[in-house]
Amino acid sequence: MSNTGLNMSRRIRRTPYTEKVIEAGVSGFTVVNHMLLPKAFKATVEEDYWHLSKNTQIWDVSCQRQVQIEGDDAAKLVQLMSPRSIKNMPIGKCFYYPVIDENAGMINDPVLLKLSENKFWISVADSDVLLWAKGIAVGANLKVKIIEPDVYPLAIQGPKSEELMVYLFGEKIKRLKYFHFTFFEFKGTKQLIARSGYSKQDGFEIYLEGFNLGSKLWQTIWDAGKKFNITPGCPNLIDRIEAGLLSYGNEFTLENNPYECDFDVYLKDMSHDFIGKEALLKIKENGIDKKIKGVTFDGSPTPHCSIPFPVYSNNRLQIGNITSGIYSPFLKTNVGLSMIDKYYWNDGQEVVVLTPDSIERKGKVCSIPFRLN
Amino acid sequence: MSNTGLNMSRRIRRTPYTEKVIEAGVSGFTVVNHMLLPKAFKATVEEDYWHLSKNTQIWDVSCQRQVQIEGDDAAKLVQLMSPRSIKNMPIGKCFYYPVIDENAGMINDPVLLKLSENKFWISVADSDVLLWAKGIAVGANLKVKIIEPDVYPLAIQGPKSEELMVYLFGEKIKRLKYFHFTFFEFKGTKQLIARSGYSKQDGFEIYLEGFNLGSKLWQTIWDAGKKFNITPGCPNLIDRIEAGLLSYGNEFTLENNPYECDFDVYLKDMSHDFIGKEALLKIKENGIDKKIKGVTFDGSPTPHCSIPFPVYSNNRLQIGNITSGIYSPFLKTNVGLSMIDKYYWNDGQEVVVLTPDSIERKGKVCSIPFRLN
Repeated sequence: MSNTGLNMSRRIRRTPYTEKVIEAGVSGFTVVNHMLLPKAFKATVEEDYWHLSKNTQIWDVSCQRQVQIEGDDAAKLVQLMSPRSIKNMPIGKCFYYPVIDENAGMINDPVLLKLSENKFWISVADSDVLLWAKGIAVGANLKVKIIEPDVYPLAIQGPKSEELMVYLFGEKIKRLKYFHFTFFEFKGTKQLIARSGYSKQDGFEIYLEGFNLGSKLWQTIWDAGKKFNITPGCPNLIDRIEAGLLSYGNEFTLENNPYECDFDVYLKDMSHDFIGKEALLKIKENGIDKKIKGVTFDGSPTPHCSIPFPVYSNNRLQIGNITSGIYSPFLKTNVGLSMIDKYYWNDGQEVVVLTPDSIERKGKVCSIPFRLN
Repeated sequence: MSNTGLNMSRRIRRTPYTEKVIEAGVSGFTVVNHMLLPKAFKATVEEDYWHLSKNTQIWDVSCQRQVQIEGDDAAKLVQLMSPRSIKNMPIGKCFYYPVIDENAGMINDPVLLKLSENKFWISVADSDVLLWAKGIAVGANLKVKIIEPDVYPLAIQGPKSEELMVYLFGEKIKRLKYFHFTFFEFKGTKQLIARSGYSKQDGFEIYLEGFNLGSKLWQTIWDAGKKFNITPGCPNLIDRIEAGLLSYGNEFTLENNPYECDFDVYLKDMSHDFIGKEALLKIKENGIDKKIKGVTFDGSPTPHCSIPFPVYSNNRLQIGNITSGIYSPFLKTNVGLSMIDKYYWNDGQEVVVLTPDSIERKGKVCSIPFRLN
């Protein structure tokens, strides 16, 4: 396992699928929420992108850890943690759910699942929302129990995913709408399956409960998937950027507020109490100085964006930083995501992007997504 | 940088020393607190161990992020977060400081630094203590400001460190006692330096304030260090295990309490209010079922402990898991750290350790540290 050097100790947690992922030829891991996330298999990012757009893939996204909030004050706490109203959220629904701190800084951008009136899962990006939620609950003396349950999401992504899932779980799964979930039987257990995923393709996420079932679930899907040309995969950078899907820690951090992240659509009803309300209303009133935008930029396929690429206006002022960028073989141009300063964030604004190969590339600001499916 | 594959995006943060670390020939990184930690340079772990025991090394431990708590309620919050009393803590002192949750589960085992009566830094292991502290403060409406300051610890470790530090910062640094800190001048700035470090050698940690000074500080130390045979390094697994230094996420997690971690010495005065007090007093009364211990085990040098090694009693009962283990070239035996079940935790207890090469090795339970310096 020398090529996957990260897998070095208990601190960087393995998942129930790690053995299968290694069998499937993983060539590297990254770490999210103290857990392994496969970074690549045998295919290049571009090969993987084309495959994902036409077939089905199996992704170990166990690192999307769940924060389970349960108890009399569960709904109260869940609501306190976000400017997005959950007043009309039904059981069985997923909500994209910005979590902010007292200064309206982004703590995370998880998916919230409502399991019952007093039980929720928060499926988190890379920060310890468990500690944030527990801290608030302890500080405010709320009647909740907060744990990280024994749950490990496995994503099935790509246009052939529905066929595969019907084969495995029956016709009923066809009726599952985007960002809804329901329960399905697997080996005598009830498992939560949502129609969702970190791609712009159709897909599902199986929130497997029970570490010990991991290998069985992976193998079952793998065997059935052969006829649908399944491959092992992971979040695809080209697909993600084209879709304008943000990544916490990359495009935005605790330093950014939800308006900068273009989450306005989730902030229409803020009549409820929530942490950071005063700060957020002030930001709303005063407006923001930068906002997440797309940038297309020309020249040869860009080197990997391991360090943000500075974005300049034509008068040589730095107006942004591309935090995720790659060549889109579909759009036949480089694409990137950047916070862009006010006065320069309009679509069509001409910019210069400096990539680490020291090439200055002409570019243009645009809206995201770059490309709908 | 393909051999350091981790350095892939802004989410896994670079440090002010990353460029220098790459120049110095780093061969891999791991991730702690969403930040790069060098894992190895050119030397083997064993070569590094011998070098560290006789010379001086420079370690980029920026991932020891600081949680700065400042304000009228700072001392109150800092005390609430730990069963260790800070009543008699003077300014200029470092405290090893167990942080626990409402169930007395370990959230982190940081080093606490008291900068003034109402300003503290918590130098954390791998979990978002920032969010825990902020959550409590928001929930309980405390008058504190909590941030991650622009501070990046750089460690100088090994017996020649004092000579090097005297050369750089003057004779005054000789008077700095273990786990104390004071301020020294560097390029016109005041920088906090503590006598401390994640090894059993003498050493210092420079809490550099100012990202932009990183390369200068590294280079200054590097140039002066040549006459002291300095090498680039990182926490050394042999040295750490011999010293019985625990690693959060490896030896213990949120599932463990401070008594299991053998932190009794910090729990003598628990007359103050703190989160988890009721739970901890109950544990104290009822006793614990397992405790961290050392295990020596024979045979050839053990393979790397990427997955815990089960520890069995002679009657084939599993009584523990070695979570960090390695061959000690000084003690000429394998050494490991494991929680060991009650009834089996006495020194001298004979055990069997199963390593991933399928070899059953005879071993013995012992106290830690395995070896004082």
